[in-house]
Amino acid sequence: MHLRGAGLIGVAAAFGIYLAVWEQRNLVNFQEALEKCALKLIKTRPTAVNLRWAVERQLEVLAGVENPDDRVAIARQTAIDIAEDDAGCCRKIGLEGVGLIEDIARNKNGGVVNILTHCNAGWLAFTDYGSALAPVYEAWRRGVRLHVWVDETRPRNQGASLTAWELLNEGITHTVIADNTGGHLMQHGLVDLVLTGADRITTNGDAANKIGTYLKALAAHDNGVPFYIAAPSSTFDWSLSDGLSQIPIEQRHPDEVRYVGGWLDGRLQNVLVCPDESPAANFAFDVTPARLISGIITERGICKPLPAGIKKVFPEKFNY
Amino acid sequence: MHLRGAGLIGVAAAFGIYLAVWEQRNLVNFQEALEKCALKLIKTRPTAVNLRWAVERQLEVLAGVENPDDRVAIARQTAIDIAEDDAGCCRKIGLEGVGLIEDIARNKNGGVVNILTHCNAGWLAFTDYGSALAPVYEAWRRGVRLHVWVDETRPRNQGASLTAWELLNEGITHTVIADNTGGHLMQHGLVDLVLTGADRITTNGDAANKIGTYLKALAAHDNGVPFYIAAPSSTFDWSLSDGLSQIPIEQRHPDEVRYVGGWLDGRLQNVLVCPDESPAANFAFDVTPARLISGIITERGICKPLPAGIKKVFPEKFNY
Repeated sequence: MHLRGAGLIGVAAAFGIYLAVWEQRNLVNFQEALEKCALKLIKTRPTAVNLRWAVERQLEVLAGVENPDDRVAIARQTAIDIAEDDAGCCRKIGLEGVGLIEDIARNKNGGVVNILTHCNAGWLAFTDYGSALAPVYEAWRRGVRLHVWVDETRPRNQGASLTAWELLNEGITHTVIADNTGGHLMQHGLVDLVLTGADRITTNGDAANKIGTYLKALAAHDNGVPFYIAAPSSTFDWSLSDGLSQIPIEQRHPDEVRYVGGWLDGRLQNVLVCPDESPAANFAFDVTPARLISGIITERGICKPLPAGIKKVFPEKFNY
Repeated sequence: MHLRGAGLIGVAAAFGIYLAVWEQRNLVNFQEALEKCALKLIKTRPTAVNLRWAVERQLEVLAGVENPDDRVAIARQTAIDIAEDDAGCCRKIGLEGVGLIEDIARNKNGGVVNILTHCNAGWLAFTDYGSALAPVYEAWRRGVRLHVWVDETRPRNQGASLTAWELLNEGITHTVIADNTGGHLMQHGLVDLVLTGADRITTNGDAANKIGTYLKALAAHDNGVPFYIAAPSSTFDWSLSDGLSQIPIEQRHPDEVRYVGGWLDGRLQNVLVCPDESPAANFAFDVTPARLISGIITERGICKPLPAGIKKVFPEKFNY
């Protein structure tokens, strides 16, 4: 967990492979050693698919390359390409998604647009721009009046720490809330749009994202609030057709729940929030079923969360 | 917030009135002074109705009593009665609700019954027994195999600190989880029953409870998991017929969200979990609409969350 964020771990994995190639470039059993490293990297984060996608893209371009210097040059260039693709995709997600926010602003006659987001899917989670926050930043630059409700996102508080910090840096008005709060806000008309990232999307439109996303999607659905997922195409797992039964959900250390980290006396410290004898469970992601998602904002446009809708935007990924 | 818990703040308010009566028993304008104190007490907690109920019960029995010693004796006895009623009601809630848990155990052929609860509605929140946890304790004493998922309940963590501690003391197996987790658990069949308390229930069956309860009710409904509210009759507000529009929602200090309290170096300390410049909002309760509630466990039996269902159990409270 030194790195997090779907896009960022993909790019980091690509550079990880580059480093592995550099170290092992002269080995006789290069291919075997590389595949071992690839597997090790893939295993570190079972839910997020961008990592596997980046590693597999490296393996593909390196297959059959015999010259050690070529291996290194190719792996390096591919890692750079993946980072640049990531930035490019996120910039496009901003342009594809900004219309949703502009439409709401227009319907509110220029009133403040209230957006709720969960976890961190901004520039700290990608090479640049971010996914869910890219349309928010684009709208802000175009002069739309915005306010962001920031779910603190327990247990690791990526919302309270990272998203709030990004929004502060961008100068965007925001309010940190406990994860429990979104339902109440939506019941009272205080949320115009829910916008989150994703860690893996299946071809039927189900989306795995940070634990608790599903609860916000339920509340959005119950209150008629649009709920959008923003993710680059590298977040789609074209091999899976059902998120709930097929996406593995990573479990992390229970102490991430039992202890909360924050600032005290000028340094980051952890406080124990439950009895020391009480065990905890720490599921890192949940799956939001497609039926609760209004649309998926990708670098190619907004898909309906249905096989037909996704196929329309990514026809080359479907065999039928 | 030195005291919390629907039942407990009601009992404490009753004793508060007793102390006010004792101090003011000889005043010429006794009635006026007492009503001022009553209003002050009622204003401290706008959402929970047990407090107002207890204060009004005191005012009623004290009306017209002229002798100072009688005033004190009556106020004292009424406070004791309210405390004893509270304990008696909660004991009965345990007996009325235990059947739900026994039925699930029977359907699972004696397998472990997984109960999810939010906030703390146990003996720390009442004079004794508690509301939501009363049926759990009763089932446990009858030998039902149980496991409780304990929502940590941000921002004040009453689940992680109080409920987990109660369950430890009762020897009941439990697991602390981030509030974000319940939806995922229900999607995967890991919750058999959701059981929470309430701070105010309207005559149509809507229930205000700790912020985030509504999100769990949505997830329970989406996954066919029974969702029950347990509360004594003093939690009903017979004057309101729609929770969402009529129950006032208390807002507390934003620093309860921005700082998390826990144990560090042997003492309770607060850590800041967001940038110091980021504001926070702190809505303390939300309202779960009756349509998401399977039933309300009261000291007189289990009501359907409908006017007709509540009237069946409390006919004297309805004029029609």
